[in-house]
Amino acid sequence: MTHFMNAKDDMVTDAIDGVIAASGGTLARLDGYPHIRVVVRSDWDRSKVALVSGGGSGHEPAHAGFVGEGMLTAAVCGDIFASPSVDAVLAGILAVTGPAGCLLIVKNYTGDRLNFGLAAERARAFGHKVSMVVVDDDIALPDLPQARGVAGTLFVHKIAGALAEQGADLDTVTATAERVIQSTHSIGMSLDTCTVPGSPKEDRIPSGMAELGLGIHGEAGVEQIIYENARQAIDAVAGKLEAEMPTGRHVALLNNLGGTSELEMSVLSAELMKSRISERIAFLIGPSAMMTSLAMRGFSISVLEVTEAEVALLQVPCPMSAWPGCVQLATQEILPLPDGLAPIKALPSAHDETRAFLIDCCNILIDAEDDLNALDAKSGDGDTGSTLSAAARALIAAIDTLPLADHTQLYRAIGQELSQTMGGSSGVLLAIFFAAAGDASASGMPMRKALMAGLERMQEIGGARPGDRTMIDALMPALTALEDSLAAAAKAARAGADHTATMTRANAGRASYINAEQLQGHVDPGAEAVARLFGHLSA
Amino acid sequence: MTHFMNAKDDMVTDAIDGVIAASGGTLARLDGYPHIRVVVRSDWDRSKVALVSGGGSGHEPAHAGFVGEGMLTAAVCGDIFASPSVDAVLAGILAVTGPAGCLLIVKNYTGDRLNFGLAAERARAFGHKVSMVVVDDDIALPDLPQARGVAGTLFVHKIAGALAEQGADLDTVTATAERVIQSTHSIGMSLDTCTVPGSPKEDRIPSGMAELGLGIHGEAGVEQIIYENARQAIDAVAGKLEAEMPTGRHVALLNNLGGTSELEMSVLSAELMKSRISERIAFLIGPSAMMTSLAMRGFSISVLEVTEAEVALLQVPCPMSAWPGCVQLATQEILPLPDGLAPIKALPSAHDETRAFLIDCCNILIDAEDDLNALDAKSGDGDTGSTLSAAARALIAAIDTLPLADHTQLYRAIGQELSQTMGGSSGVLLAIFFAAAGDASASGMPMRKALMAGLERMQEIGGARPGDRTMIDALMPALTALEDSLAAAAKAARAGADHTATMTRANAGRASYINAEQLQGHVDPGAEAVARLFGHLSA
Repeated sequence: MTHFMNAKDDMVTDAIDGVIAASGGTLARLDGYPHIRVVVRSDWDRSKVALVSGGGSGHEPAHAGFVGEGMLTAAVCGDIFASPSVDAVLAGILAVTGPAGCLLIVKNYTGDRLNFGLAAERARAFGHKVSMVVVDDDIALPDLPQARGVAGTLFVHKIAGALAEQGADLDTVTATAERVIQSTHSIGMSLDTCTVPGSPKEDRIPSGMAELGLGIHGEAGVEQIIYENARQAIDAVAGKLEAEMPTGRHVALLNNLGGTSELEMSVLSAELMKSRISERIAFLIGPSAMMTSLAMRGFSISVLEVTEAEVALLQVPCPMSAWPGCVQLATQEILPLPDGLAPIKALPSAHDETRAFLIDCCNILIDAEDDLNALDAKSGDGDTGSTLSAAARALIAAIDTLPLADHTQLYRAIGQELSQTMGGSSGVLLAIFFAAAGDASASGMPMRKALMAGLERMQEIGGARPGDRTMIDALMPALTALEDSLAAAAKAARAGADHTATMTRANAGRASYINAEQLQGHVDPGAEAVARLFGHLSA
Repeated sequence: MTHFMNAKDDMVTDAIDGVIAASGGTLARLDGYPHIRVVVRSDWDRSKVALVSGGGSGHEPAHAGFVGEGMLTAAVCGDIFASPSVDAVLAGILAVTGPAGCLLIVKNYTGDRLNFGLAAERARAFGHKVSMVVVDDDIALPDLPQARGVAGTLFVHKIAGALAEQGADLDTVTATAERVIQSTHSIGMSLDTCTVPGSPKEDRIPSGMAELGLGIHGEAGVEQIIYENARQAIDAVAGKLEAEMPTGRHVALLNNLGGTSELEMSVLSAELMKSRISERIAFLIGPSAMMTSLAMRGFSISVLEVTEAEVALLQVPCPMSAWPGCVQLATQEILPLPDGLAPIKALPSAHDETRAFLIDCCNILIDAEDDLNALDAKSGDGDTGSTLSAAARALIAAIDTLPLADHTQLYRAIGQELSQTMGGSSGVLLAIFFAAAGDASASGMPMRKALMAGLERMQEIGGARPGDRTMIDALMPALTALEDSLAAAAKAARAGADHTATMTRANAGRASYINAEQLQGHVDPGAEAVARLFGHLSA
């Protein structure tokens, strides 16, 4: 697995340079690369309690991304998943600590505890006031004497950070941090392991399984379960958290472990709001990547029973874009649809022959779903078959609401139905096609000419011409040949469709974005659909 | 590949529910699921120009994540990678458009152009003022008549959105959007394809290759190149952009395509700041996931030559956490290291036998790197071998700076060296070990007793005891048996190390986070290192 990096050994310093560059001058770093990797607020004047955190890298934006007004004063960065050295931590402490003192916020891993602990001793030997809190919010392993520190650390950063920014003294900030730690509980779930740059991928989690209670360094989770869906995932996590949650108001922090899509994270948000712990959650932070495990395809949830004062501190705005804010949950408002959407519907009417004909056409498209998807995958996103078959199924479902006996109205009604149920360009183009055919039919044109009028209108709005490798390359010759016979139309449609496989330049549709070699030899899926329709009808 | 979702067909509506829940009441949606998926500002009073955007889903946080004060008024969401229907777009327009009118911001895909275009026509038929701009910022395919719309769309959302929020009229907002579009250029690169939920993964990009100029729907890129490193990746992208950039001040938008780790994105930031186009970049947005392609492991860069007025609009704060802000780039400040870090160094002295002995020990650890990593991978993050061999290499490099002739000073100097070069808990523990052994040696203890004193101090701070499955399980019996002979010590170390493979419960170190079955049968890597050292020395 390749990564966006240069040399593995430079990855952390390169990334720190990037974070500082993207801060626009609000962050600076200490000299001393590569052993000393300390990011500090560039506006810091040591007049207040300093907050120093850090640990192994690979958890970005933690911790450098949370350095700034109202959160951390300095972040000390180790190698990927390895604690920084005592010297590096000491450098961070000495660089930011003034008379008000310094709070070290440490996640409970042996290395971090040792290095931060020894650095604190050395800083105290210089006469500095230094206190240290150890975050141990992970509940994955209930019988572990030393629980790990994971994403709940963010609660401590924000609450203690806002308090220190307001001028609270070291004892107050430390005591508040301790209270937050005692009330914070976290657990994570992942669908795959993370891959450390320069190391081979570990295939510990089989496809279809999820690991519950895994750590943020790729450590194996406490159990693997058969993954069903987002609801079950949230239920498994919420079930573990529930036992730790008193009945008061909680804030939940929904953390992306790094490689989960934003779409999925929002699905998880929605499930969290419907979960067994939702009634105790009054505030939400995220979903957002805050304490990641490189690009792990997983998430974690942290909960904290909060006081009013802590909520206020969590909600103090801070300028770091990595902090997503803390919102009070509200009931979801559903606004009525505006007027003017529902066009006047033609009255349904029965016509057995037309009904059977339409269902027949729909079934041809439904049967062709996989083949058309496969063709589309050669040039697009592989959904032509699904789009057409979904529309066909919707049309079958609506068949008895259509004006089957009135063919002029029927064109328009099919167009309306397609425009309501079918997304994508094919939906609109077919809606335009049928609407225009309906107009032409209303003005007295016979069917073939009406369909040809629809085709012309579709070309006009869609911009595709014959030779552009679209359904038109089958539909145009078919409608022309229909003047002779249905068999001739079928033959012409097939020839037209097959000819698209020789077209090396697509000028319209999504296939136009890819290059010639990838198109060669593959029939356009829209043209294929038309050829199959005519082929079947003439058989 | 599994995804965090329930049914595929519900994924977009579930995600919208999540986005609205996480907004804390600032967002609402229209009725009409599943066909109508429109997210709107819940505080909207139609007194200003409305901005409606949208398109296929799978690009989150675009577009719903950018609905709010100073950006979009409504987002119309289609299925994954498929345009929303005309009715859905029309519903969005009608829901938010007042006398000031509405601007549609559309990415240049046939489906979006058609559906938004037809919806605009229908809205105009109701008497609404509607204008539409089409973003075509992608420069991947220079000879394409219709360039795609990609992440540069965000410039339009923010600039037009801030302008509309300030009360500008529709013509002004539209003209500004048009100007921004004309000056915006984007291109992306990816190390892998994205996987559409419910569809099989497409293995189009071989491992070790990168695709340049790919689209945001998984469309194939314009070329595949052999991927070298982050610098080359940025250079390839910057090379394409350079030709499109006049010599004025630009803002760059660095977009995560969804599955790239935050660490990698920061490395890319740093490279962008050193790239051939860096001198023309005065402002930066990101790095952040703004216009994603599900969880694609790639990035894109968009550039816009900006006016002062546009910079001001980009920098107006807005409350949506998906918008990362726009910073003015500053020179990176490197602060001097604080005093008190560098301990007093003992004077170097020569001692050939000790020198050879130390180098010998170091080489044993260097040779064992892969084996120890493999053992550690069974219980931890697989880096014990790398950590020890890196320290050994550093010690060899520093060998002639050590007080080799003064054994008491030498213990401390080795401890100091290890504390400066070695991260992780083993570094600190070994530093403590040698520092304490040095103290004991200074008080006149013989070597074996001095080392035993070091071991006791290491246990005290680290918390590990014999039987906890650590290096102590080999070191303690070895130092005890050393009273008899080196051969006895080697034998005891080996027996102690081997015994760790039968320990099913680790109480200290990272191995303590995983369960018993995974430990059984594997020797602890720290104990193995000790056994190899003594074994080699006695051979």
